[in-house]
Amino acid sequence: MATDLLISNVTALLMDPAHTVLDRAYVQVSEGKIVSVGQTRPQGFDGSQLDGRGQVLLPGFVNAHSHIPMTLMRGYGGGHGLQDWLEGYIFPAEARWDDRAIRAATALGAAEMIASGITCIADMYMQNEAIIQVLVEAGLSANICTGALALKPGFDPDTHPECLLQRRLTERWHGWNGGQIAIDASLHAEYTSYQEPALWTWMARYAQDHGLGFHVHLSETEREHRDCLQRHGLTPAALFERCGLWDVRSIAAHCVWTTPADWDILARHGVTAVHAPTSNLKLGSGVAPIPAMRRAGVNIALGTDGVSSNNATDFFFDMKLAAILHNGVSRDPTAVTAWEALEMATVNGGKALGRKTGRLQPGYDADLILVDFDAPNLIPCHDVAESLVFSAHGSNVTMNMCRGKVIYKDGQFLTLDLDAVKKELADYAMPKLFG
Amino acid sequence: MATDLLISNVTALLMDPAHTVLDRAYVQVSEGKIVSVGQTRPQGFDGSQLDGRGQVLLPGFVNAHSHIPMTLMRGYGGGHGLQDWLEGYIFPAEARWDDRAIRAATALGAAEMIASGITCIADMYMQNEAIIQVLVEAGLSANICTGALALKPGFDPDTHPECLLQRRLTERWHGWNGGQIAIDASLHAEYTSYQEPALWTWMARYAQDHGLGFHVHLSETEREHRDCLQRHGLTPAALFERCGLWDVRSIAAHCVWTTPADWDILARHGVTAVHAPTSNLKLGSGVAPIPAMRRAGVNIALGTDGVSSNNATDFFFDMKLAAILHNGVSRDPTAVTAWEALEMATVNGGKALGRKTGRLQPGYDADLILVDFDAPNLIPCHDVAESLVFSAHGSNVTMNMCRGKVIYKDGQFLTLDLDAVKKELADYAMPKLFG
Repeated sequence: MATDLLISNVTALLMDPAHTVLDRAYVQVSEGKIVSVGQTRPQGFDGSQLDGRGQVLLPGFVNAHSHIPMTLMRGYGGGHGLQDWLEGYIFPAEARWDDRAIRAATALGAAEMIASGITCIADMYMQNEAIIQVLVEAGLSANICTGALALKPGFDPDTHPECLLQRRLTERWHGWNGGQIAIDASLHAEYTSYQEPALWTWMARYAQDHGLGFHVHLSETEREHRDCLQRHGLTPAALFERCGLWDVRSIAAHCVWTTPADWDILARHGVTAVHAPTSNLKLGSGVAPIPAMRRAGVNIALGTDGVSSNNATDFFFDMKLAAILHNGVSRDPTAVTAWEALEMATVNGGKALGRKTGRLQPGYDADLILVDFDAPNLIPCHDVAESLVFSAHGSNVTMNMCRGKVIYKDGQFLTLDLDAVKKELADYAMPKLFG
Repeated sequence: MATDLLISNVTALLMDPAHTVLDRAYVQVSEGKIVSVGQTRPQGFDGSQLDGRGQVLLPGFVNAHSHIPMTLMRGYGGGHGLQDWLEGYIFPAEARWDDRAIRAATALGAAEMIASGITCIADMYMQNEAIIQVLVEAGLSANICTGALALKPGFDPDTHPECLLQRRLTERWHGWNGGQIAIDASLHAEYTSYQEPALWTWMARYAQDHGLGFHVHLSETEREHRDCLQRHGLTPAALFERCGLWDVRSIAAHCVWTTPADWDILARHGVTAVHAPTSNLKLGSGVAPIPAMRRAGVNIALGTDGVSSNNATDFFFDMKLAAILHNGVSRDPTAVTAWEALEMATVNGGKALGRKTGRLQPGYDADLILVDFDAPNLIPCHDVAESLVFSAHGSNVTMNMCRGKVIYKDGQFLTLDLDAVKKELADYAMPKLFG
């Protein structure tokens, strides 16, 4: 159970529009929510206390695009071109998943995410109930989706596997535990569903009818973008607009090859573009036009993508890369600022997932992390935001609190038995997938 | 004193051209050198032992371009354009250095480097003797240079400050302690020395006469490259060739704007191009043409540049970035492989510095690091090289050995008193530089 807690004497990044940094701050947490943030000690507080001296408190990171069980494919088939990698390595391994292996892989992925300060994820994968069970135990908040496919013609929503799964997930899990688990509607992508456009309209209608968000891969590669244009005379963003898929809160992962006209569509519908710079670079997909999209009014969040193409989940790596990459490519050292990178990683991610997370503000979920600013790599500190984005590592995270519950402290996982997870991976999941 | 040591049961990356990875390897170290590497236990060994089970042994990293005292400018003036940053922040702070502040800053920088697995550096800065003293105590190996300037006309080698310093450094320190310290000849860059071309010919002659290497910034920014062409009708690489500066072992940092003709020059003279991707991106300098330079036969090493523009020294970050950046920019997922990135970070750096380091081979310096492959972010391991480059963090380094001496183990610095360093920074160096 989450208990009342007062974090005191901490440097707090509120992640408000004014970029407020409070020194010697007090942040009070009760029943999973932030109840006060300020520089005076709350009167009459008698719960637990945590001295934050020498540390920086900020909202936990929102990993707005992940495939958590793919942690088991870390480095698998690396060094191969995209098609060889998918067909020779990833797809054959994925064909061997069962729920037990999914659970072990999800626990490993959760450990890595928690250790680098992630508190919420938007995850797209299969066998989602096994994933949800582990995430619930771990204490993370998650928007879960199936990544629906239509690889051949012939669509019947009463027999289509992801439609059935979508219904079951929504009924059983959407809003579970005060919103810890949310279910999003989803498509994997246009290029994996164009055989049956009826899936698109069904999914758009389903999301609207059930008040769900929507999550999809969008224009990740040039080929995907170009083929869609050839097939439909429309970009993926324009096609999905026409199907009504952007009429709900939406997450569009990657957006590397989106056009200015696409950005207008995304901005108009409040769609979040999730930047996944590590994966985009590693796979040779390209560099998403993040500064231009932001100027066009698109909400930009940050995602690690699967560990299979990252090949890690150190959110600090992805945040630093998101901050420096565009400076270099556009040759403008102010193209993405430290604060903009922090916003991508927190408040913008909260918006993407439809959650009150990513800010230190009363009424928001108590998704909080502490970063040790006494570590050699964070000395000296001329500017807290610069240091967090450009100098901090995942290993500087000393505490991870999700919905008011401390799930990681000083290197120890409080909700996961890491030794048991390692044993299960070695004894079961690894032999199951890789023989 | 370095003692005899046997590291056993370790997975060892030899960093030989065949990319050999030895399982259950034994690596014997004596008097600062590697004396044997193999899969059988050396007969009659009776020194200390270190069980490497679950860990990976590889050569320590060579940071082939650094400005170590600039660790004190971490994040200072961040978010400003290049000229404002230099003139409004960096230069005014640098004007206030004294040897005591330099020593404190160097110790901090050394701690960060050691913790991320760096064993050798090529450092360009001022007040070099203060830097050397600290590096010697810390146990790191270093090629040191002054980055000579000629900001106004009028050159007299008997009064020019860096010429005097160059001579003193060479006489006192070159080859110190069996080569732990080497002195390189140097220029800061063409754009900071063109006022007095006599400095170039003096430096070239001095390097040749004294058997020194040479270190310089080369074509880091487009403006630097273009202005040099306008001034001399030659690129910086061609100009320095004409002056004979490439006739010794040479380190050319950045090389972002070098041309195919430049690559031929560098390759012909065996000049190492030091890739500093984090700094180049952060400052908006651009993306160095690394795959093309490598194909042209140029030796490519890796450098962090100063913490002022990185803003950290996690060599794993820079290595991963070097491996993924070119895939993304060239849209070829095989543009830089994991092994190529490891070579940049180790054996190629050894060549750059003219040191027998960067390989596990008898006769090489015992510059070795251990990486904990039982950490969650390194499970599972499908491929050791992929995992080291794309998944490992600096915090996975459990041991750093320089020239046979363990200087870092399980998070503890054995040659630096980190608390004393922090106190000296707070009490003296920070007030001295930043008021």
